[in-house]
Amino acid sequence: MTQPIHPIDVILHKRDGLTLSDAEIQAFIRAIVERTPERQLVTDAQIASFLMAVFQRGLNAHELAALTQAMRYSGDTFDAATLDAFTPVFCVDKHSTGGVGDKTSLLIAPVLAAAGLAQPTPAGIPGICVPMISGRSLGHTGGTLDKLETIPGFNSQLNLIQLGETLRQCGAALIGQTPRIVPADRTLYALRDHTGTVESPFLITASIMSKKLAESLNALVLDVKTGSGAFMPTYEKSKFLAELMVQTGEAAGTRTVAVLTSMNEPLGRFSGNWIEVWECVDILQGKRHAMSRDLIELSNILSGWMLHLAGRAATPEAGAKLADEILASGEAYKAWLKIIAAQGGDTTIFKDPAAFHKPKATRTIRAEISGYLASMDCKQVGWAVQRLGAGRAKPGDPVSAHAGIESHAKLGDRLEPGQSIFTLFSEDAALLDEPEHMLRETIKISAAPPAVAPLIREVISAKPGI
Amino acid sequence: MTQPIHPIDVILHKRDGLTLSDAEIQAFIRAIVERTPERQLVTDAQIASFLMAVFQRGLNAHELAALTQAMRYSGDTFDAATLDAFTPVFCVDKHSTGGVGDKTSLLIAPVLAAAGLAQPTPAGIPGICVPMISGRSLGHTGGTLDKLETIPGFNSQLNLIQLGETLRQCGAALIGQTPRIVPADRTLYALRDHTGTVESPFLITASIMSKKLAESLNALVLDVKTGSGAFMPTYEKSKFLAELMVQTGEAAGTRTVAVLTSMNEPLGRFSGNWIEVWECVDILQGKRHAMSRDLIELSNILSGWMLHLAGRAATPEAGAKLADEILASGEAYKAWLKIIAAQGGDTTIFKDPAAFHKPKATRTIRAEISGYLASMDCKQVGWAVQRLGAGRAKPGDPVSAHAGIESHAKLGDRLEPGQSIFTLFSEDAALLDEPEHMLRETIKISAAPPAVAPLIREVISAKPGI
Repeated sequence: MTQPIHPIDVILHKRDGLTLSDAEIQAFIRAIVERTPERQLVTDAQIASFLMAVFQRGLNAHELAALTQAMRYSGDTFDAATLDAFTPVFCVDKHSTGGVGDKTSLLIAPVLAAAGLAQPTPAGIPGICVPMISGRSLGHTGGTLDKLETIPGFNSQLNLIQLGETLRQCGAALIGQTPRIVPADRTLYALRDHTGTVESPFLITASIMSKKLAESLNALVLDVKTGSGAFMPTYEKSKFLAELMVQTGEAAGTRTVAVLTSMNEPLGRFSGNWIEVWECVDILQGKRHAMSRDLIELSNILSGWMLHLAGRAATPEAGAKLADEILASGEAYKAWLKIIAAQGGDTTIFKDPAAFHKPKATRTIRAEISGYLASMDCKQVGWAVQRLGAGRAKPGDPVSAHAGIESHAKLGDRLEPGQSIFTLFSEDAALLDEPEHMLRETIKISAAPPAVAPLIREVISAKPGI
Repeated sequence: MTQPIHPIDVILHKRDGLTLSDAEIQAFIRAIVERTPERQLVTDAQIASFLMAVFQRGLNAHELAALTQAMRYSGDTFDAATLDAFTPVFCVDKHSTGGVGDKTSLLIAPVLAAAGLAQPTPAGIPGICVPMISGRSLGHTGGTLDKLETIPGFNSQLNLIQLGETLRQCGAALIGQTPRIVPADRTLYALRDHTGTVESPFLITASIMSKKLAESLNALVLDVKTGSGAFMPTYEKSKFLAELMVQTGEAAGTRTVAVLTSMNEPLGRFSGNWIEVWECVDILQGKRHAMSRDLIELSNILSGWMLHLAGRAATPEAGAKLADEILASGEAYKAWLKIIAAQGGDTTIFKDPAAFHKPKATRTIRAEISGYLASMDCKQVGWAVQRLGAGRAKPGDPVSAHAGIESHAKLGDRLEPGQSIFTLFSEDAALLDEPEHMLRETIKISAAPPAVAPLIREVISAKPGI
C-alpha cells in the first residue's frame, strides 16, 4: 500500500535540501490542479512556501525534469502524430525568452511550413509541423500574439482540434495558450509573480518547457537572450538557463538546442505591434531593409537549426542557407498568406502594409553630436515601446496596433549631428514625452567605435557537433 | 517624502540575502496586522514566501531585534510600571521552550510572589511582579494553562486590566495569551505551522520574545531544553536558539539569561495535567517526593536567577538558596493559594490533591530484567502522555485532567525485575495500549551504569559573570 504524499512533506523536504522523488513532485502538482475552493488539497500559502524553497535550494536535473513533466501532463497536450493525414510528421518549434523587436516567429513559421510542405516529402523524411504556441507582451518585451492580432480578423484562440486542422492545411500555426494546456503553470506563474519567485532559472525552465513539451515536439530550438534587454541579468545566468532548458528538453525525449543571442538593442527595424508585422511582410515579399539585417540573420540561423534537426539539412549552417533561399524564393510568403488566411486574417492588408501604419503622433530623436552609437539599456528601450502604447499596464488591457519605434541606426553605426536614431509612434501625442526622455537618457554616443557583441554568442546542445 | 514600502520588495530583498531595514520589517508586520479580507495589503501567499525566505536566509541580530520589536508592538502591551499602587516595580518572567513534566512555572510564580511581597520593600529595591503569560499543550509537550485549568473555577483568561489587578494583589499571575497581545504572531504562527516554516531559530525567537517582551519585562529567564525531549534536535541548535533569544531580549533592553537544561526524561514525578498540579502542591506544602528532586532543583535555579536579576540575591546561587528557603518556609504555598484564589480557583482541593486524581484506568510498566535505566526517547514519552488523553488532537479539543504518567525511576537508577518504571493513567482503558507500547519500545535498560547528562548544561548570558 502506498502512503499518501502530503504537500507539507514535499515542502519540508525541499526546504531542508533533500532530493524530491518523482512521486512527491507529481503529488504536489496534482494537488494544485485538483484542488477546489472547498477542498484545498494545497493552499496558496503552501505553494508560495514551496516556490521560495525551490528558489533558494534549486532543483537537480532529475527533479527539474520530473517537475516539468508533471506540469506538462497537468492538462491537455497536443500531439501532431495523431493527425491522420499527416504521418510521418516531425514536430518542431522555436521559443524565445523575450526581447525587444523580436519577431523571428513571424518569419520562421512560414519558412518551416514552406520547407515541409512545398516539396513532396521524400521517402523516410517526415513532413514538418510547427505548432507555435506563443504569448503576449510581458514586462518590457513584446508578444507574438499581440503583433498578429493587429491583422484584421486574425484568430489566435484556436482550440487543439482547430490547431490540428490548421497544421494539416498549412504545416504551421500561430496560436495562443489555451486554459487547458498546462493549467498547473497558470496557478504557479500567478503565485510566482505575486510572491517574488519569478527569477528562478529552475522555475522559469519548468514553466517554459512544460508548455513547449505539451506540444509533443520532436525538436525545439530556444533563442535565449542575453544582454541589457534580456530578462536574465548576466551572460552566465542566461547560459545557465539555456543549459537547464536543453537538459530538461532532452530528458523528455525532445531534441533541444539553445542559441544564446545578443539583446543589446532592438532586433530589426521596428519594435511595436503592427509595425513588426509590416517589417516581416516586407522581408517575406523580398524587400530587405538595411535595418532588418540582424532580424533576417537570426531568423535564418534559428530556422536553420530547426531544418537541420528535422533532417532537411546536413548542418545548421546548410539549414540557415536553405532558410534564406526559401525566404528569398517567395515560398515562405505563400506559406505566410496561407497560415494567416487559415486563421481568419485579412491578407489584403499585406499589399501595402505601410498604408496600414497610422500613428496619430510621431517624433524623431536625432544625434546631437557626431560619434558612434555606443550603447543603450535595451530594457529601457523596451519599456519606452510599451509606454508609447504597445504594451499593457495590466493583463487584459488593449494594446495599440500603431505604437512603437523605428530604429534608424544600429550599435557601432557612425552618426552625424541631426541624423535620426529613433522615430517614436503613438496614438496619443501625450504619450511621446516620457518615452522620448527614456530613450534620450539611455542612448550613449562615443568618439571611438565601440566593441559590439556578436549577434550569436554561443550554441548550447546536449550533443555537441550535431 | 517617504516612498511607501511594498511587501513584495521586502520579500525580494530577503530572498536575495540583502539586509532588511527597520522600516521594511515594520511595514511588513503592519501590513499583516492591518489587512482585512477586502484589503489584502499582504496575502497569505506573500507571508508564506517571506517566511520561507527567512527560513533559508536567516536574520542578522539587528533584523531579528527589529522583527521582534515590530511584532511586540503589533497589538496591546502590558506594563506593570503603570500600575499606580505598585511602584517601583521590577517585572520578571520565565519562559520554557517546552518539555515533558515541565511544571516549574507552578513553583516559580509563587516563590517570586512570596519573595517580592512577603517582606516590605527595602528602600531602592523595587517590588517584584511576575506577569506569567503561558501557553497550552503543543506537540509532545504539556501546557501550563491546561494544567492550571484542572483546578475547579480557575480562570486563565484575564484581560490586561484584570492581570494588573491580580499582580497588584498577589505579585504574580498565571494567565493565557489574549488575542490582542502580539496579533502578528497569531497570523505568522498559523502560517508557519501550515507552510513548513516552524523550525527556524529566527522565527522561533521572534515569536517567543515578542510575546514575552509585550509584558514590558525588566528581566527574563529562559529555560531552553536540550536532549531527546526538546524541540531543537541537537545541543548546538538549542544553544544557538538560546543565544538568539538572549541577544534579542538584551537588544530590547530586557536583561535576559538562558539556562540550557536537559530534557532526556520527564521532569519530576508526574507528567499530565492535574497530577502535575498535585506534585507542585505537595512540594509547596513541604512534601518532597524523591521523584520530584530534579523539578525542585530546576525551579530553584530558575527562581534563583530571577531573584538575582531582581536585586534580591547577590548571585544566582544565593538566589537559588533563597528560593529553596521560601519554598520550604510555606510562604510560597501561601502565595500560591492567594494567586489561585484571585483567579477564581477552588483552593479547598489542595487539602487532599491525591483524592482529586481519579483516572478510570491505570497500568504499570515494570522492568523485566535487572540493570540500569539507561535512556528513553523523551519525545516519545511526551507523545505517550498526550495519547493517554493529556493532549489534544486539534486546537480547542478538551484535555483530560487525569491522564498522564507517573515516573518511578530516573535515568541511571538501578532496576530489578518487577520494579515499576512508569504508571499510566487514563480516563479510557482503550487508550492505554498504544502509549504502553510506545513507552516499552523506548525504555532502554543497560547492564552498566549509563552516563547521564547533568540537569543544567550551560548558562547563556550577554554579560558573563553576572
